[in-house]
Amino acid sequence: MNEFEIIEKYFAPLSRDGLRDDTAVLKIPPGFDLIVTSDTLNEGVHFPLGEAPEFIAHKALRVNLSDLAAAGARPLSYQLNLAFVQKPDCGWLEKFTGVLAADQALFDIYCSGGDTTSIKGGFSVSITALGLVPSGQALGRGGAKAGDAVVLSGPVGDALIGLEALRGNIITPHADFFALAYRKPLPRLALAEGLRRYAHAAVDISDGLIADLGHVCRASAVTAEIELAKIPFSAQASLLLESGAVSVEALLTGGDDYQLALAVPPENIGFLDFEHYVIGRFVSGSPKVEVLDAGGEVLSFKKGGWQHF
Amino acid sequence: MNEFEIIEKYFAPLSRDGLRDDTAVLKIPPGFDLIVTSDTLNEGVHFPLGEAPEFIAHKALRVNLSDLAAAGARPLSYQLNLAFVQKPDCGWLEKFTGVLAADQALFDIYCSGGDTTSIKGGFSVSITALGLVPSGQALGRGGAKAGDAVVLSGPVGDALIGLEALRGNIITPHADFFALAYRKPLPRLALAEGLRRYAHAAVDISDGLIADLGHVCRASAVTAEIELAKIPFSAQASLLLESGAVSVEALLTGGDDYQLALAVPPENIGFLDFEHYVIGRFVSGSPKVEVLDAGGEVLSFKKGGWQHF
Repeated sequence: MNEFEIIEKYFAPLSRDGLRDDTAVLKIPPGFDLIVTSDTLNEGVHFPLGEAPEFIAHKALRVNLSDLAAAGARPLSYQLNLAFVQKPDCGWLEKFTGVLAADQALFDIYCSGGDTTSIKGGFSVSITALGLVPSGQALGRGGAKAGDAVVLSGPVGDALIGLEALRGNIITPHADFFALAYRKPLPRLALAEGLRRYAHAAVDISDGLIADLGHVCRASAVTAEIELAKIPFSAQASLLLESGAVSVEALLTGGDDYQLALAVPPENIGFLDFEHYVIGRFVSGSPKVEVLDAGGEVLSFKKGGWQHF
Repeated sequence: MNEFEIIEKYFAPLSRDGLRDDTAVLKIPPGFDLIVTSDTLNEGVHFPLGEAPEFIAHKALRVNLSDLAAAGARPLSYQLNLAFVQKPDCGWLEKFTGVLAADQALFDIYCSGGDTTSIKGGFSVSITALGLVPSGQALGRGGAKAGDAVVLSGPVGDALIGLEALRGNIITPHADFFALAYRKPLPRLALAEGLRRYAHAAVDISDGLIADLGHVCRASAVTAEIELAKIPFSAQASLLLESGAVSVEALLTGGDDYQLALAVPPENIGFLDFEHYVIGRFVSGSPKVEVLDAGGEVLSFKKGGWQHF
């Protein structure tokens, strides 16, 4: 199969118009703003060489959906740019596009276009996702106010343990559980309506809790004070923390987590209709994140979060 | 500088909101449809190793703008996904973003977001461009009708000669002219309104005239008959054709041309308010492109156009 036959057989079925054009036409319903976000994943950097196509597909789409979730948006469509080192085989393509099709159905999104190219070096996938949010209601990193609670939508750190377990650096009977957290994140799209209604700011914590809360602090010009004792960890992660196999610092800065961190006015906490954890508060002060131990002392971390350079 | 400092210093000035969020919020004016298109360029494939950052930037943005032009759209914003093999130096970034800033001003578009990552192998840039078109008026490859004229917006083949000249395969005193056609294409955005008003279908000929006309034929279920004698070449290319340094086949199938090929009803030809060349007609028949020589004989070409696999 040549490039065009591959597109026709494997990618066109992910679209609504058969990808017959270089451009797609999207109708934006009145009363909605468009949300746009992009993420690139590269072989050997974001996923290991030889990673299963299913997991690359899950991750590439879902990390984008996670950003839409943080904005309080619902998914509309996505552009899929793939760069292959060599002509992909049919088995690989079937698995890759099969997972995309399943996730499209699960999250109500479709492929509106993209590009398929050859590249020297390593496989690369870039996705730009488009979403819709009622006009004027999009959430972002700015908007947190002194007095707001710092709220997490779920436990943090499982993905970091998953990565280390896959690398053989952590031995645990729950390796599969952790690996799945790393390879197949769940975008918290179900929270979008509640966020728009009750939160001032939201961010996914894909760069790690500390780094992404830091982004909120800078965009909102506030300090975040969080209490270590209130940060939720999974039961499986708690076992590893207790045994000393992993550090709290690693879990709070590791990245690849896809829970949301929110700024919620205290009077709205009671209305949140999803699992949530109040882990601290935003206060007036310079833009920084302070993690307090049980005695109220500020912990210092060597590393803020994942950076490419 | 780390990843975030690079974004802050070089990429944030290309945006309207400082790229402070993972998502951008775009207002789509009522009465317009959204047009979306994506193109990826990879080092060693789409441009040579060591290509000047200015030319990479021009090309990456402009090939996307060319697709917006073919749709009859005006530019809105673009997402910029960059994957670097190593931390880029400041000189490189200054030149790359300087050209983007200049082209943003020239074509009235801004950067709404993107992603900056590290990659193994070669530098890669993916751009997804967004545009606006009055509702229901977007052009595409479908829509050509038997009886429509095949119209070109300008000469073809200069970019192919430019690539071969850069590779040292063609020696010509006009090497700079041709190299510029290859490295710095001009998206025909100025034609958008005329296209919407007078054309049935449009495509840029980035895969080569024959291949892209073939796409129109398949999407529109028609045959394209074009006359070799009517196809426009630049004066510089004509010299090389006459001397036998380059073949007609190469110029018609070479790709990297950014003129537009249009399907225009004959009664509308007189209204086209831009340089144009009627090179043939669409007729009933199976989807194919036939190139007729001066005697009306069908020429046969070995190669349809550029393919990655």
